[in-house]
Amino acid sequence: MEKKNCLILALDVTDRENALRIANEVSEYVDSIKVGYPLVLGEGLGIVKELAELAPVIADFKVADIPNTDRLICEHVFNAGADAIITHGFTGRDSLDSCVKVAEEYDRDVYVVTEMSHPGGVEFFRPVAETIAQMAADAGATGVVAPATRPERVRDIRKIIGDDLHIISPGVGAQGGSAADVINAGADWVIVGRSIYNSNSPADAAMKICNEMKC
Amino acid sequence: MEKKNCLILALDVTDRENALRIANEVSEYVDSIKVGYPLVLGEGLGIVKELAELAPVIADFKVADIPNTDRLICEHVFNAGADAIITHGFTGRDSLDSCVKVAEEYDRDVYVVTEMSHPGGVEFFRPVAETIAQMAADAGATGVVAPATRPERVRDIRKIIGDDLHIISPGVGAQGGSAADVINAGADWVIVGRSIYNSNSPADAAMKICNEMKC
Repeated sequence: MEKKNCLILALDVTDRENALRIANEVSEYVDSIKVGYPLVLGEGLGIVKELAELAPVIADFKVADIPNTDRLICEHVFNAGADAIITHGFTGRDSLDSCVKVAEEYDRDVYVVTEMSHPGGVEFFRPVAETIAQMAADAGATGVVAPATRPERVRDIRKIIGDDLHIISPGVGAQGGSAADVINAGADWVIVGRSIYNSNSPADAAMKICNEMKC
Repeated sequence: MEKKNCLILALDVTDRENALRIANEVSEYVDSIKVGYPLVLGEGLGIVKELAELAPVIADFKVADIPNTDRLICEHVFNAGADAIITHGFTGRDSLDSCVKVAEEYDRDVYVVTEMSHPGGVEFFRPVAETIAQMAADAGATGVVAPATRPERVRDIRKIIGDDLHIISPGVGAQGGSAADVINAGADWVIVGRSIYNSNSPADAAMKICNEMKC
């Protein structure tokens, strides 16, 4: 994905009409739009194709299955027009390799979750986040997902993966993370949801975050 | 789910016509049909409703997100008619609680992955499988998913969760696990995919496994 505004919209709304309206309003301020299963299960994978006409789409499916199932999920997602997929790493190197291989075939991106931004995200991830980050680098992933709610962890993970991999970072805004802090800590993109899509003016909210980051 | 044959079909085909044909042929031999994202992404959640008319459906979505997203995924799945959902535990207690809460509201089942049956499934799961199994019991899940390819692990996990929780166990047949061995080790159901759906006669293949287990 091309870096212009360092901002990714987490489009965590559940209906097509709202999704397309908000995506339309903010597309000039965001480098990508991240969608998850709640929207896709409700509206079908066709919503990915529609959104991809407005901005590159990251399918945040947190893929976490055996290699063959992961492969099939990635193929569906890329065939639907997504630019990137988010996968877990805790299912092991073979599962991750399977996603990276499909992404290479389609010339798309893979981001690997190293640690999550919710409270339970520390319980099992914390002890293995560095190992997963290193595995992502070894496997040839595009980048990793690390929590904006804990900028010190973004800094730790940047040290491990070096400058070749990208860091995308959720948890800014409603979850408490500061966009400027997490960019300073080494993230390439912040991922913002509620603060934008729940705003009366999603475009103004997105623009404000862009100005705050001075990316 | 009611225990009659101790057999769950992993319906890992990717098109509706095949899925319904096979489900029809084997429905009298299986206690449930497990479907994953590849089928649902291709055919939409409506396939769950169609299959649920033939047998109870387990949505093997290996849910692995933050609590709010997990809640939305579970609501979609249960509204579509699934009887149960498979979730990861790796994302922490709050994420699991979110799935269990929705399942209780809908009077449906939640199974938690403790360890996976593919080679990479040992890398990060092995050190925490027991902790996840205990967490599943504490959270009030219906049961856990443990690998038939490693019956000794099924035995370990049965000791932790006691007799109140169910164990469903994938990896029988094409992946090498023996149905009888894993039932003897303490599993309640074996999950079989390719050996049944790739057979010339899925019904005969399913019946043979039932006879082998003498459940």
